[in-house]
Amino acid sequence: MSVKKKAVMVLSGGLDSTTLLYKLIDEWYEVNAISFFYWQNHSKELECAKKTCEKLWVNHKLVDISFLKDLLKSSLLDWADAIPEWHYQVENMKATVVPNRNMIFTSIAVWYGQSIGADIVALGIHNGDHDIYPDCREEFIEKLNDVVEISDWNKISLYYPLINMNKADIVKEWLGLWVDYWLTWTCYKGLDKPCGKCGSCTERLEAFKKIWTVDPLDYYQS
Amino acid sequence: MSVKKKAVMVLSGGLDSTTLLYKLIDEWYEVNAISFFYWQNHSKELECAKKTCEKLWVNHKLVDISFLKDLLKSSLLDWADAIPEWHYQVENMKATVVPNRNMIFTSIAVWYGQSIGADIVALGIHNGDHDIYPDCREEFIEKLNDVVEISDWNKISLYYPLINMNKADIVKEWLGLWVDYWLTWTCYKGLDKPCGKCGSCTERLEAFKKIWTVDPLDYYQS
Repeated sequence: MSVKKKAVMVLSGGLDSTTLLYKLIDEWYEVNAISFFYWQNHSKELECAKKTCEKLWVNHKLVDISFLKDLLKSSLLDWADAIPEWHYQVENMKATVVPNRNMIFTSIAVWYGQSIGADIVALGIHNGDHDIYPDCREEFIEKLNDVVEISDWNKISLYYPLINMNKADIVKEWLGLWVDYWLTWTCYKGLDKPCGKCGSCTERLEAFKKIWTVDPLDYYQS
Repeated sequence: MSVKKKAVMVLSGGLDSTTLLYKLIDEWYEVNAISFFYWQNHSKELECAKKTCEKLWVNHKLVDISFLKDLLKSSLLDWADAIPEWHYQVENMKATVVPNRNMIFTSIAVWYGQSIGADIVALGIHNGDHDIYPDCREEFIEKLNDVVEISDWNKISLYYPLINMNKADIVKEWLGLWVDYWLTWTCYKGLDKPCGKCGSCTERLEAFKKIWTVDPLDYYQS
């Protein structure tokens, strides 16, 4: 009998990272999830992350890094209404970029992983993010992995199995893993239900359409 | 006339990073310092960092990352008396390792640097740290730089000019730059003056002896 491998994973509560969590459990990892509160509009995600972990009996840490707000302004970090709508066009999306977010998340997750003797730190970064967020590119994650692997005497590696998937691929994966879709949040607005209009909702809805499925979530407009 | 280059630097308030700050000013950088409070015993360092920045009219941000305590135990992070004394022997020092600290500090400093349009993020990492702290090795910093350089559309590079210096080299540099030595703190204990016994004090005192100089600080025992 082989010993179960230990993973730390960054769980936003969105569709991608929630799918990754189910995938890790399916691959027999002992999962420890970590979520970050950074004053985002869409902190509803975090409630979903918490509920998913409770449901799956997964150890969950919530880390408040809202101090970052003092160091930066970005529309993802303000309680503003000015979230770019419809498509994730480069011009629009650059306004929502929280630079270097994945490096901060990863370095804290690695710290946590080192303290509990984890084998991997898993990230839900995927293909769709590449062009807009520099820290979601495969090249970036590969180089980040090079650093992580030598950051301690006990080797930890990054694991990012969604890197070559687009949103539709992830939804397919998601359906196969019987993910509880009620417990994911993708919308960038902090309303009681997803707006159906922001870039993030648009992308999610299109991914469902692409594989001839209907998103079971209730939207304000879709 | 060339435009002054902008730097963010990680300032602990110890001898190394304070020397680096003076060096950056000497090299005509517009410096923005960032210090981290992570519940360390030696938070006296941070008072020194603050005073040095006030004296030099340097913009200074203090960031509280004490949430890390919830994720890890390490003797540097507790109000314990059990700080290893005398030499920084590998067995002793491994007890004080705060894993992956430099990666966390750097990623937050890069975030800050990106928000203010900095050209470099400077780190006071030096030769003496290499064998004990995996995240102080030149190889680590080089690979970290590879990631940092592609983490945003605007390129920021790491600058670590002390990497091949030992403590005595830094003290020499320090003397040349007329650093205000009263405003540095190296001791790992949180007393009113440095203990003169902990690994950190021992190393500092030896560096002064090595270049036939006396450390002007007042120690409990030296």
